[in-house]
Amino acid sequence: MNASLEELLTSCRSYTDLGKVASYIPELQKSDPHRLGLCILSCHGEYQAEGDARVLFTVQSIIKPILLLQALLDNGVDVVRAHVGVEATGKPFDAINYTDQILDSQHLNPMVNMGAIAVCSLIHGGSYEERFQRLLALTRTLAGDAPIQVNEAVYRSEKSHATKNRALAYLLKTYGIIHDDVEEVLDCYFRSCAISTDCTGLARIGGVLANQGRCPDTQKALIPPEYARFVNAILMTCGMYDGSGDFAVRVGVPAKSGVGGGIMAVVPGRMGIGIYSPALDEKGNSLAGIRLLELLSQAMDLSIF
Amino acid sequence: MNASLEELLTSCRSYTDLGKVASYIPELQKSDPHRLGLCILSCHGEYQAEGDARVLFTVQSIIKPILLLQALLDNGVDVVRAHVGVEATGKPFDAINYTDQILDSQHLNPMVNMGAIAVCSLIHGGSYEERFQRLLALTRTLAGDAPIQVNEAVYRSEKSHATKNRALAYLLKTYGIIHDDVEEVLDCYFRSCAISTDCTGLARIGGVLANQGRCPDTQKALIPPEYARFVNAILMTCGMYDGSGDFAVRVGVPAKSGVGGGIMAVVPGRMGIGIYSPALDEKGNSLAGIRLLELLSQAMDLSIF
Amino acid sequence: MNASLEELLTSCRSYTDLGKVASYIPELQKSDPHRLGLCILSCHGEYQAEGDARVLFTVQSIIKPILLLQALLDNGVDVVRAHVGVEATGKPFDAINYTDQILDSQHLNPMVNMGAIAVCSLIHGGSYEERFQRLLALTRTLAGDAPIQVNEAVYRSEKSHATKNRALAYLLKTYGIIHDDVEEVLDCYFRSCAISTDCTGLARIGGVLANQGRCPDTQKALIPPEYARFVNAILMTCGMYDGSGDFAVRVGVPAKSGVGGGIMAVVPGRMGIGIYSPALDEKGNSLAGIRLLELLSQAMDLSIF
Amino acid sequence: MNASLEELLTSCRSYTDLGKVASYIPELQKSDPHRLGLCILSCHGEYQAEGDARVLFTVQSIIKPILLLQALLDNGVDVVRAHVGVEATGKPFDAINYTDQILDSQHLNPMVNMGAIAVCSLIHGGSYEERFQRLLALTRTLAGDAPIQVNEAVYRSEKSHATKNRALAYLLKTYGIIHDDVEEVLDCYFRSCAISTDCTGLARIGGVLANQGRCPDTQKALIPPEYARFVNAILMTCGMYDGSGDFAVRVGVPAKSGVGGGIMAVVPGRMGIGIYSPALDEKGNSLAGIRLLELLSQAMDLSIF
Repeated sequence: MNASLEELLTSCRSYTDLGKVASYIPELQKSDPHRLGLCILSCHGEYQAEGDARVLFTVQSIIKPILLLQALLDNGVDVVRAHVGVEATGKPFDAINYTDQILDSQHLNPMVNMGAIAVCSLIHGGSYEERFQRLLALTRTLAGDAPIQVNEAVYRSEKSHATKNRALAYLLKTYGIIHDDVEEVLDCYFRSCAISTDCTGLARIGGVLANQGRCPDTQKALIPPEYARFVNAILMTCGMYDGSGDFAVRVGVPAKSGVGGGIMAVVPGRMGIGIYSPALDEKGNSLAGIRLLELLSQAMDLSIF
Repeated sequence: MNASLEELLTSCRSYTDLGKVASYIPELQKSDPHRLGLCILSCHGEYQAEGDARVLFTVQSIIKPILLLQALLDNGVDVVRAHVGVEATGKPFDAINYTDQILDSQHLNPMVNMGAIAVCSLIHGGSYEERFQRLLALTRTLAGDAPIQVNEAVYRSEKSHATKNRALAYLLKTYGIIHDDVEEVLDCYFRSCAISTDCTGLARIGGVLANQGRCPDTQKALIPPEYARFVNAILMTCGMYDGSGDFAVRVGVPAKSGVGGGIMAVVPGRMGIGIYSPALDEKGNSLAGIRLLELLSQAMDLSIF
Repeated sequence: MNASLEELLTSCRSYTDLGKVASYIPELQKSDPHRLGLCILSCHGEYQAEGDARVLFTVQSIIKPILLLQALLDNGVDVVRAHVGVEATGKPFDAINYTDQILDSQHLNPMVNMGAIAVCSLIHGGSYEERFQRLLALTRTLAGDAPIQVNEAVYRSEKSHATKNRALAYLLKTYGIIHDDVEEVLDCYFRSCAISTDCTGLARIGGVLANQGRCPDTQKALIPPEYARFVNAILMTCGMYDGSGDFAVRVGVPAKSGVGGGIMAVVPGRMGIGIYSPALDEKGNSLAGIRLLELLSQAMDLSIF
Repeated sequence: MNASLEELLTSCRSYTDLGKVASYIPELQKSDPHRLGLCILSCHGEYQAEGDARVLFTVQSIIKPILLLQALLDNGVDVVRAHVGVEATGKPFDAINYTDQILDSQHLNPMVNMGAIAVCSLIHGGSYEERFQRLLALTRTLAGDAPIQVNEAVYRSEKSHATKNRALAYLLKTYGIIHDDVEEVLDCYFRSCAISTDCTGLARIGGVLANQGRCPDTQKALIPPEYARFVNAILMTCGMYDGSGDFAVRVGVPAKSGVGGGIMAVVPGRMGIGIYSPALDEKGNSLAGIRLLELLSQAMDLSIF
């Protein structure tokens, strides 16, 4: 199978020419568009890696399912659902989900920016510093021995350029969906998005989600199985932004992408997958990464449908 | 297990008080809101039925996945996808998916009315009569020995009252998404929605989709497995209208509801489920039906996540 | 002054090259794009005409203020305002003024299609034939000795091609804003739009509106002054579709355009103006016609601001 | 006439019970809802005042036409129009004029918040302090001997509470419509809105606009007549937010309202009118103020239609 993974990866390299690295902040623009890495961790702890599996990148939106997990752990499902909805928005990741001059919390989705910013304010902690440290600790718990750091340059770049996310956060405040200081909430969000890892980190986190919340290596319970399932269901319907429907028919597993070029895929009961390739398609998803997952899905019959 | 199904069904009866039968056409309003029926057909042909499993009702929107299947069989995936999108719309079933004065075919979804009307025009046939007869034949093939009829009263009632669907169809024509005579396309759509069956019919159709396109009784291939998978993926992300995300987290299987009160659920590799209970929630989904599926999912561990 | 009008008109001829005749129905596409005509009728009955002032064309949307007048005469201001709003929509003439899946009558405007179709249903009459005949009679009363006919070819062409207007009308019916048979209401609307006249007709009708409802020739009261004022106010804010603001700053008088190429301008207390030039700008207004009005406004100090 | 003005004002007092003072910032909420003042200044310098004509209040949105004037004086019409549109938005004063995820400068309007914030960035000056001082100086020039001050408490209250305006400004920055520091632009905007005056100030400013840019007392030219006309035209179509169409048919003159309770009306060639009554209707316009203007319009035949 290792040989085959290498072949699949090689056959997708040319797709890295077709996308563009994220350019909205200078730091992300420095990424090498031709990187392509893959890591798979089975629910039994079997591990495979190919290509640029050890290159670090910022998780960006892939932190969203972990933000949601932390909010679920701190508040339970009912409280979380009272603050954000779970329906697909039918709009891009940075959309203003605001129709007819009303902002309804049930129209927010934790997998797009506006909802994820709202979720930050649900994490428990005496300060936003503490909230962030708790999120970071959870991320490290899920990622096991994979590297989990904060990319300070990306964090600062994001913080100083993020006019759209500021607009979204001020709207959340205007409509009473967040109550804390906007800059504090945003700071937590920007730092979360600037957490960096590699394909092994994503495969490990995805592996926990695939394994009913248990660590694939030790089978130790890290999060309740019902929260893993909750997150997987939302990833299935909304994890790939407004490309989620296309991903469902082409690949058929829960997944979350980030504009840093990562994709974390979850094959329930079987494996977690981490992908890295920073050249993005028009919807902000890793172009070669999706292609690689499509081929993997066909080769390994991964679709849950 | 039969005893347990009966208990589950009994425990959901009181939920039938909380919904309302569809009232937009007089014929549907005649339904008895307290009906509740269930049928399960395993991929190995094992069959269980409880409650009002033999009461006939019109499938309404549950015909949408079959319309899509017929369009796929007649045209292949690429042609179908060139005419309709696969992303969730984030809007109600009868929404005008039209933003900023533009109607883009990729914003249509075959699981909501506007997209399903467009799909009708993709079915092959020398006349719309022939197209409908081919759809009806496919439905009967999928449903096996379950009753499949056309409820003429519902069809006529729908046809004479459906001003919103007429508006949607005239918009499709305006923007060149359908080219045929609007009334002919609509007539095919209204007759399709007025096809009636019972819970056994829905369980059988769902069973084929769950069984990679093969008949659960005979294991004979009825449709290509890739089309079954394609339809299941769309049902997962969009089958329950703007309640699809909620259904994914609560039940966790592909499903399609209709305002007639039916729900067809697909548990890939395991079973098809047919439910009937005509009292609907605010989104147009069977209220007690969703509750029953939620309990079934917990009891039988059905979630694919 | 006659010499000067001729010069102004000549200086605008080249603008007829910059627009396009309406092409959505075959009959309108036959118009000669280089036609340019002008007629002015002062409130004292002084009359001037230049260029193609005697060429017949269909009034199209210029019937909208007359539809509104007939509705006001039949029902009074309060009833009319209970059925349609008076605010600018901020959208094109054929927009679906429908936000967040709700259609509110107060978001309709009688100067855009959706509102005008609703206004048709307010005109009194035992049948839609009678309603139309009453509208035609009012138009003839306002136009005095100018030709007022129905262009049957345009009417039939419009009726058989108007899928967008059908969609709008079916939405009005869906939301209970019109109650009559959609095709009957639309038939009245299409015939109204197909009424043809020439620049003298528009100048005469505009002259009555400018002259507080009195005939400029005879000073006989044809309509109540408060209805003339009401219509003029709406023309000022909404008469030129989503080009009304631009027209207000450039020309500064109430006016109504039609896709047939006509513009009727009202200079309160001074004159009515009829213009014809069928090459349209992107918003559906006569391109050379607006330019001619802009020059006229400067030369004769017409702006009411 | 003085007696009559007093009677009109008295007859409107009861309307002050029907509205509500603005509550979005604590400072505005302190206003006495029963205040009602009126001042009229004819183009010949004749002056009349009634009721609470000498009570100071913040101009709020009534600064918008002066912001626009300053931008016109500094840049000319073409530059201004390249940055903001002139069409009615069909939406409330604080709307996000953003459709389908695009923000087009031509969809901005200088009479609603988003457009006015953009206009602030067009005013010339080496610093935003200087820009504001230039605006203040223009306001004082237009207001003659009427009091023009900055209400520091309102300014600070607005600055610390204005989450919606911050969201709007960050969107303008995101889409490249403003380039300066968001907080600096907003600071200028908040201070401008916090300028206070009384009814005599509004009547004086309106009088200049009514008198082709000349001071009604001295007939000295203060602003070019074409800019006065430009502003009046925009006030007519958009000055009363999404109540502009209603105001046009009921009152029929250009006017601008502010949530502080003021209305400045312009009767071209005749007079400027200042009104104060802080109890607002649902659209944010002074409720008794509009009623008083409606009665004044009827009594003095003010409508320009």
